[in-house]
Amino acid sequence: MTITSPAIQVGNDRIIVTYRLNCGITEAMKRADEISVEQSIEFPKSLVDDGDIRTKIIGKIEECSPIDDENTQVIISYAWELSANDLLQLLNVIYGNISIQPGIKISDIQLPAIASKFMPGPKYGIDGIRKIHNVYNRPLLATALKPMGLGAKDLAKMAYDLAIGGIDVIKDDHGLADQKFAPFKERVKFCAEAVLKANEKTGLHCAYYPNITARLSQFVDNATFAQENGAGGFLISPGLMGWDALYWLRHNGCDLPAMSHPTYQGTYVIDPRIGFSHAVQYGKLMRLAGYDMSVFPYQGGRFSFSHEDCRNILNGCLQPFGSYANIFPAPGGGMKLERIEEIIQFFGLDCVLLIGGDLHRSGNLTTSMELFHKAASATAERISRGW
Amino acid sequence: MTITSPAIQVGNDRIIVTYRLNCGITEAMKRADEISVEQSIEFPKSLVDDGDIRTKIIGKIEECSPIDDENTQVIISYAWELSANDLLQLLNVIYGNISIQPGIKISDIQLPAIASKFMPGPKYGIDGIRKIHNVYNRPLLATALKPMGLGAKDLAKMAYDLAIGGIDVIKDDHGLADQKFAPFKERVKFCAEAVLKANEKTGLHCAYYPNITARLSQFVDNATFAQENGAGGFLISPGLMGWDALYWLRHNGCDLPAMSHPTYQGTYVIDPRIGFSHAVQYGKLMRLAGYDMSVFPYQGGRFSFSHEDCRNILNGCLQPFGSYANIFPAPGGGMKLERIEEIIQFFGLDCVLLIGGDLHRSGNLTTSMELFHKAASATAERISRGW
Repeated sequence: MTITSPAIQVGNDRIIVTYRLNCGITEAMKRADEISVEQSIEFPKSLVDDGDIRTKIIGKIEECSPIDDENTQVIISYAWELSANDLLQLLNVIYGNISIQPGIKISDIQLPAIASKFMPGPKYGIDGIRKIHNVYNRPLLATALKPMGLGAKDLAKMAYDLAIGGIDVIKDDHGLADQKFAPFKERVKFCAEAVLKANEKTGLHCAYYPNITARLSQFVDNATFAQENGAGGFLISPGLMGWDALYWLRHNGCDLPAMSHPTYQGTYVIDPRIGFSHAVQYGKLMRLAGYDMSVFPYQGGRFSFSHEDCRNILNGCLQPFGSYANIFPAPGGGMKLERIEEIIQFFGLDCVLLIGGDLHRSGNLTTSMELFHKAASATAERISRGW
Repeated sequence: MTITSPAIQVGNDRIIVTYRLNCGITEAMKRADEISVEQSIEFPKSLVDDGDIRTKIIGKIEECSPIDDENTQVIISYAWELSANDLLQLLNVIYGNISIQPGIKISDIQLPAIASKFMPGPKYGIDGIRKIHNVYNRPLLATALKPMGLGAKDLAKMAYDLAIGGIDVIKDDHGLADQKFAPFKERVKFCAEAVLKANEKTGLHCAYYPNITARLSQFVDNATFAQENGAGGFLISPGLMGWDALYWLRHNGCDLPAMSHPTYQGTYVIDPRIGFSHAVQYGKLMRLAGYDMSVFPYQGGRFSFSHEDCRNILNGCLQPFGSYANIFPAPGGGMKLERIEEIIQFFGLDCVLLIGGDLHRSGNLTTSMELFHKAASATAERISRGW
């Protein structure tokens, strides 16, 4: 006896997921069938009748083609209705249970137009952020306030010097939370004030992005406090907060630009056989979740991303993805001033250059900022003129 | 010129993290030093003076010992103050940025007693859950309402039959969200009513755990609605909601027992070289986050966990971990009725047996529930008598 399917209404909108399976085509065809069931009804297919559950709820295998002897590309589409118009459930359909199976990598996702009705994506994107800073002809320059252990006043002094030096975005180090040596409210107040004071002097538009990542009972309060006290944006770690965090802020009237930090998410990308492609994890998912800038480690710093990985992220941030705005790739993770030209040559002008510790190497933040600015502007100009 | 460290107050409470590094001891000693910096100040150590930042904020390498030629165990402790008493920041300290580096697995965590002041853990644990069901001498029996696509009334009918058959816990399938074919409120209302009606008839204490996982703007409302309409517990996917979700519910007066679903988290365990050990991910982290039961796939089902992985989870759920209550391991993921004896022999009596699709195989839920009950009770009795 099988489950009798009721009549089910689903439209033509499909979630399209491209999987890279770490197996040959014969096994992949079998696995594709299992995935289409696991990610939808999660129930023995043989126990379901021929009705709408089978034809409309189970995923549809759209393609199964060899990449090489050991890898196969499988494309499966799911009815949009399975997502319940909810970003978390959408991710659950795309990758939930199969995250527990080996050899499955999500290499691409495509969404129907209806997705952006419920998940509108970046509020600003590259164009909006450029307007805020009134900077159009070069990458934005960014840094992080650190090291952890400094007090709020020390961090604010640092922020002031950096803003005077002409930096565009100052974010908190992602480890600065509400530790007693630099409490959240005190830090945000002092640093935001310092940056606004510097802006008055320079006539520039530096923005301070405090790290508002926190337990859920504190998160919206953090964002509201930051917004009301002169912050220019939010730094959020979606790997800790979950992917819906920014939409929740928008829902609560917190509308500053948002920068995502890659912490706690690396596991999803660093093994080539599981998780997500770099383009999806640090590009498309960030846009889907509404971030305007995506921080990630560039090749050759303290982390292991390759040039190919970084190009993948660049594409995920900038290539067409439904109606979602393009966002800034923000390469960082141990970048040095002497590599600025190389980084801009790689990413182009639409990126955020994130340099942290190295700005402190000269012992003088103003001197470092001069170098940072000069190198970025000179390279940008050369590129703009096609040199 | 270096950063001048202020005087910093930290106590003696330490977060102790055991890392398994996929490299020999010489490289591991270098990497341990890098990890201790990355997970704390994230700043060039050479640019920090000899003061408190260096001595109190940077992690302390407690041990570095070879496991075999290719793997080294490294233990690093961090001052509790780095966690800001916040579970998400605690996880950020333990694993945040190094998630982006290859070859690092968290094999164990130990927390100071102060942790439980801010993260009290399971509200019920095994003892509390057993009291609710008044079942002390056997594993609890559980199942999932599915397949997705059925309407709320069909699911409620199924719940009724299962509860009449004597099941202890009926959870939603983790893919049931607020889809229009079985809207959340309608489903919860009908299924909770059905289970309560069956309980009146049987005199038993079956509990319905709806899946309340949802976008943050909906999550507390879902839990509140479920609690006010007769649900007996919450099913939550921390891989989607983040690790603070349950504490947020507690903060908002939602106090039913909670079962965690493993979806979207597999990536953290299935590669032996990255992420977390099974014991930490599906045991200790679940207890730390407050869950009373941890669902995961048992060996030999639709997923690839080995017996060793499952024993690891069993230990993570049941071995002493500060003052945190023990919780039920809930093995599932394609279990069949004929394997009940084997599963109980493996996990012992303190487990939740989760069987989904296979209960439908006979075509009669009551018949299946009879088999389920008989097999579990008979095995439990044999074990209790030491046979």
